[in-house]
Amino acid sequence: MAFEYLSNVALDEAVSGFLAALDERGFAPRKEYVPVGEALGRVTAEPLYAAISAPHYHACAMDGIAVAAKATFGATATTPVTVQPEDYIVVDTGDPLPESCDAVVMIEDVVFEEGHGIDELGTCPVILHASIAPWGNVRQIGEDICAGEMLLTSNVRIEPAAMGAMLAAGVQQVGVIARPRVGIIPTGDEVVEPSANPKPGDVMEFNSTIFSGMVRQWGADPVAYPIVADKPDLVQKALVKAVSECDIVLLNAGSSAGRDDYSSRVVAAVGEVLYHGIAMKPGKPAILGCAANTAIVGVPGYPVSGIIVIEQMVKPLIEKLLGCSTPGGDRVKATLARPCTSSLKYEEFVRVRVGKVGDKLVATPLSRGAGVVTSFVKADGIMTIPQNSEGYEAGDQVDVRLLRPLADIERSLVVIGSHDPLIDEIAQLIHKSNPELSVASTHVGSMGGIVAAKRGENHCGGIHLLDEATGTYNEPYLEKHFPKGGVRQVECVYRQQGLMVAPGNPLGIQSLADLTREGRRFVNRQKGSGTRILSDFVCKRDGIDTGAIYGYDHEEFTHTAVAALVEAGSADAGMGIYSAAKMYGLGFVPVCEEQYDLLIPDYAWDTPMVQALLEVLASDAFRARMEELGGYRLDHPGRVRRHFE
Amino acid sequence: MAFEYLSNVALDEAVSGFLAALDERGFAPRKEYVPVGEALGRVTAEPLYAAISAPHYHACAMDGIAVAAKATFGATATTPVTVQPEDYIVVDTGDPLPESCDAVVMIEDVVFEEGHGIDELGTCPVILHASIAPWGNVRQIGEDICAGEMLLTSNVRIEPAAMGAMLAAGVQQVGVIARPRVGIIPTGDEVVEPSANPKPGDVMEFNSTIFSGMVRQWGADPVAYPIVADKPDLVQKALVKAVSECDIVLLNAGSSAGRDDYSSRVVAAVGEVLYHGIAMKPGKPAILGCAANTAIVGVPGYPVSGIIVIEQMVKPLIEKLLGCSTPGGDRVKATLARPCTSSLKYEEFVRVRVGKVGDKLVATPLSRGAGVVTSFVKADGIMTIPQNSEGYEAGDQVDVRLLRPLADIERSLVVIGSHDPLIDEIAQLIHKSNPELSVASTHVGSMGGIVAAKRGENHCGGIHLLDEATGTYNEPYLEKHFPKGGVRQVECVYRQQGLMVAPGNPLGIQSLADLTREGRRFVNRQKGSGTRILSDFVCKRDGIDTGAIYGYDHEEFTHTAVAALVEAGSADAGMGIYSAAKMYGLGFVPVCEEQYDLLIPDYAWDTPMVQALLEVLASDAFRARMEELGGYRLDHPGRVRRHFE
Repeated sequence: MAFEYLSNVALDEAVSGFLAALDERGFAPRKEYVPVGEALGRVTAEPLYAAISAPHYHACAMDGIAVAAKATFGATATTPVTVQPEDYIVVDTGDPLPESCDAVVMIEDVVFEEGHGIDELGTCPVILHASIAPWGNVRQIGEDICAGEMLLTSNVRIEPAAMGAMLAAGVQQVGVIARPRVGIIPTGDEVVEPSANPKPGDVMEFNSTIFSGMVRQWGADPVAYPIVADKPDLVQKALVKAVSECDIVLLNAGSSAGRDDYSSRVVAAVGEVLYHGIAMKPGKPAILGCAANTAIVGVPGYPVSGIIVIEQMVKPLIEKLLGCSTPGGDRVKATLARPCTSSLKYEEFVRVRVGKVGDKLVATPLSRGAGVVTSFVKADGIMTIPQNSEGYEAGDQVDVRLLRPLADIERSLVVIGSHDPLIDEIAQLIHKSNPELSVASTHVGSMGGIVAAKRGENHCGGIHLLDEATGTYNEPYLEKHFPKGGVRQVECVYRQQGLMVAPGNPLGIQSLADLTREGRRFVNRQKGSGTRILSDFVCKRDGIDTGAIYGYDHEEFTHTAVAALVEAGSADAGMGIYSAAKMYGLGFVPVCEEQYDLLIPDYAWDTPMVQALLEVLASDAFRARMEELGGYRLDHPGRVRRHFE
Repeated sequence: MAFEYLSNVALDEAVSGFLAALDERGFAPRKEYVPVGEALGRVTAEPLYAAISAPHYHACAMDGIAVAAKATFGATATTPVTVQPEDYIVVDTGDPLPESCDAVVMIEDVVFEEGHGIDELGTCPVILHASIAPWGNVRQIGEDICAGEMLLTSNVRIEPAAMGAMLAAGVQQVGVIARPRVGIIPTGDEVVEPSANPKPGDVMEFNSTIFSGMVRQWGADPVAYPIVADKPDLVQKALVKAVSECDIVLLNAGSSAGRDDYSSRVVAAVGEVLYHGIAMKPGKPAILGCAANTAIVGVPGYPVSGIIVIEQMVKPLIEKLLGCSTPGGDRVKATLARPCTSSLKYEEFVRVRVGKVGDKLVATPLSRGAGVVTSFVKADGIMTIPQNSEGYEAGDQVDVRLLRPLADIERSLVVIGSHDPLIDEIAQLIHKSNPELSVASTHVGSMGGIVAAKRGENHCGGIHLLDEATGTYNEPYLEKHFPKGGVRQVECVYRQQGLMVAPGNPLGIQSLADLTREGRRFVNRQKGSGTRILSDFVCKRDGIDTGAIYGYDHEEFTHTAVAALVEAGSADAGMGIYSAAKMYGLGFVPVCEEQYDLLIPDYAWDTPMVQALLEVLASDAFRARMEELGGYRLDHPGRVRRHFE
């Protein structure tokens, strides 16, 4: 084991220094020629000039008769001109303009003398009631494209219409930049190919799949190499091979400064280490190096760190080779929903959900865990916290780079409140029947939902807040928190809450009191969640000392997370809903049926998203799906219980 | 020949009626399963649930030692706790948390007793100066994904991170919507495969290439069928085959009501014609039909009409099958730069250049010719003029659907003014050295450039306006048109103007006077162009009656268009610059050397685009390229001749 010194170079400095160093070492695009029909989305390697004009001949632009324009001069409605059959030629659209003609009269403007008809066109005289200007209804040579004109500059992506223009301009092969080859080498003794039944300790190798997809979206060709065990000589061998075959090589994992982390030494042995340790989070242990004219990037093992490193350091390399920017990545200002602290030492990248609520874009930070790949699935954008900033307060305006088109974000139902798997089912039903709408949900508990609505940051939120004084749900809370009104309490479902326990309940747990016994382990929900309030209430009611329950401060954010821990045997019980217990095949000790409502602020009521939500709540499809999940009772979902005006 | 009655159904009505009719006939997506690694960009066919949790075991999140958290309770800087070797286990990141442990102390926090070192870790006691909470530095089961959770709804595009999440969740195959198969049948006797040397009358078949690219970008698989001659039985046979193989069939050309236009009859023979004739321009003769559950669209032959029909009518079909919207197509409001009239009868789609000048988006209509495919290469967006509108005035706010990302448009140098091929060369040099910048040029003549600058609609424009009174260029015009200043006159080049004539000048043309002779044909530039002003000036000076020059009112918009017509023998002479004559190998009779300047309004001066332009003007690369083109003299390009303040 050896600790290496990692530097802390600013990200911008590292990237520009990296690019400059690569430039000196001959890191450059390769050119290749491809048939125009295969050039979609490729990037031009050189300016492209038209070889021929288009049209390449004077083409008749109408079905009709070709004439010498002079022959029609003077024709008016009152002084028609007759054209003899030898002075016109019948033409179709696209026909070459006949010699001696310089205009086409469209067939609709041709009149026949009494006794003649269209079947005789070409053999009988015709009458014109208007003159035609020279070159009228003729597509002249070069009308569209003049030979020698530049059709496209270099370093632009080829779109469908440009492919048509090239073919029209006599160009058959186009010089494009060869797709950068990006090699990806996964390393690690514990790393295995993905499977449906991994063993404990198996780390499934899905980073290559993510990284391949990313570089492919930017116009590069990924080359996925096999997993290499944690042996420096094997890693070195793999790196030498990849360097000889690729423009850019990503050496995944082993870039930190711990045990088995010898990547930088391997890179140094094969080529040079230019930077090791960047002032960014996640991604600090990244390595930037090269061998000959191939770039090497040491990518940290955690998927989130890896994704950020590849966005920040590999994307610029691909853009450098292509000489153009890659698609996506609009930058917007958004209002931060929750405070987000950061270290002065790093530039930090935080995944955020972004929603348009009222007139403002609201960014809600997602999990910052480096292993949480789903945070990228849920993320709508990346918020940047600059180096030398301690972070932001709730309400601050922050910079966000979007991962989805703004137009999609603007049509997203922002759900912030209590967790229930039914929110995902609602998302499915809304999107299925309204493809233009989507749902972005964040689970922060019932109280979090109320706070979000007060701040104008959600369209709806699930709440199931038991009022100890009255024994009723939600209404007293809404009364208290919305004294001036502005919110509707909408019926959703009744659901079974209880203790989730191992299948068959081998420990015979019947109540929270049973969990105070030595050796019993509980898993709880976070403060502010309705389920936590329920647990607290039951303990208080039954005179249970929560300090005597081991794990009472072990907090999870969703019913499914609690169920997963009980199933894994990490806890003996946790409070949660029946559907989660059923999903995991767990035992279930009912505690109560509770009322799960949706709060919908008035400002959101008329949005298409909320209207679609109300339709789904009232639908048979929703009812059927809730029955499948189990543990729910539906009365009149979608009904307004009370409008706090 | 037969004229069919075409209806004039409103576009919206036709599309929704078409979709409804197809729905009834079983037009629906097909589902298929693909390995996750091949699912990039595919669309989910069903909601996707996690099969296993991720992590699927309690994983150590740090290199260090695993302990029972209880064993560390009470440890502080002043009251350290010693942990014996039998009470801890050395672990690496990713290792399964050992039985009986519930926390990991990171290696950096482990202290050794005097005389022991890291090499003895695992066999010697260690000292901790802080306690660790249960589950500290442990990635618990389900931290990222809980088994049973919905990862994605149906009908969403699969992004790289989602592929990683699927693999992490034990999902190996994913149910996706089969890419809609879109068959494309080109028809027409005159239609030939594209070549570099087409014969007059050959219409090169590049529509299939454009249409294929378009549907591919939307997520469909194009199937290009061979060209079919204009014989109803052959077309019918091809259509029957395509219908049996595809979800959607595009029958290209032959959809108008002229000679050889029997498409609707063929569609009726194979299936049904639902609509023929839509109130849109271009694209009126489109046919919407079906056979069994396959959609058939009769697409007009002109590429521009075809593109519009496919965007308006085929894209909704693909979106219907995929159940989600296709990328792109932001809608913006823009200020119209030029008036644009339209018929009350149609909804009209006009291609526009869009530029951000100052704070406003400016839309400049491009050629509305149905055959002008380059108008789609140049277009940044499509302006819609509703049915029952007579069009718009200059300065009106209009609706534009963008074809490029807004961010790209905002970084585009808007050049509106006199044409010279050097503008394209400047575009190449600017983009090459500044990949984030591009150039959008529109050729409207020198006076058009002045008008655009007065209205705040361009960043720069080429001008070469000869003042008859003083014999100087540009300055008198700028003085007159910018009495309050606000513009800079920037030196660009001096260039040779003259008469372009056939190679070797077989007619011995020496001056404009020679063109008044019987049988000589001139081709002119449009009014307001500097070159037209030059021709007018020369005629006036030399006492030439312009009415005596045949073709003096035959106007083209660029030097290259004039050269192309002279080369084709459609005109015997045209006024233009030497470089255009050289490009076409034409003879050239010099008339004068003129001063071609750039006018740059003050509001544009500090933009990165104009600054990049000035750098390019002063560069050796620009000088070298101008020498290659020929006919230019460079003194100090980029120098400000005069700042009108």
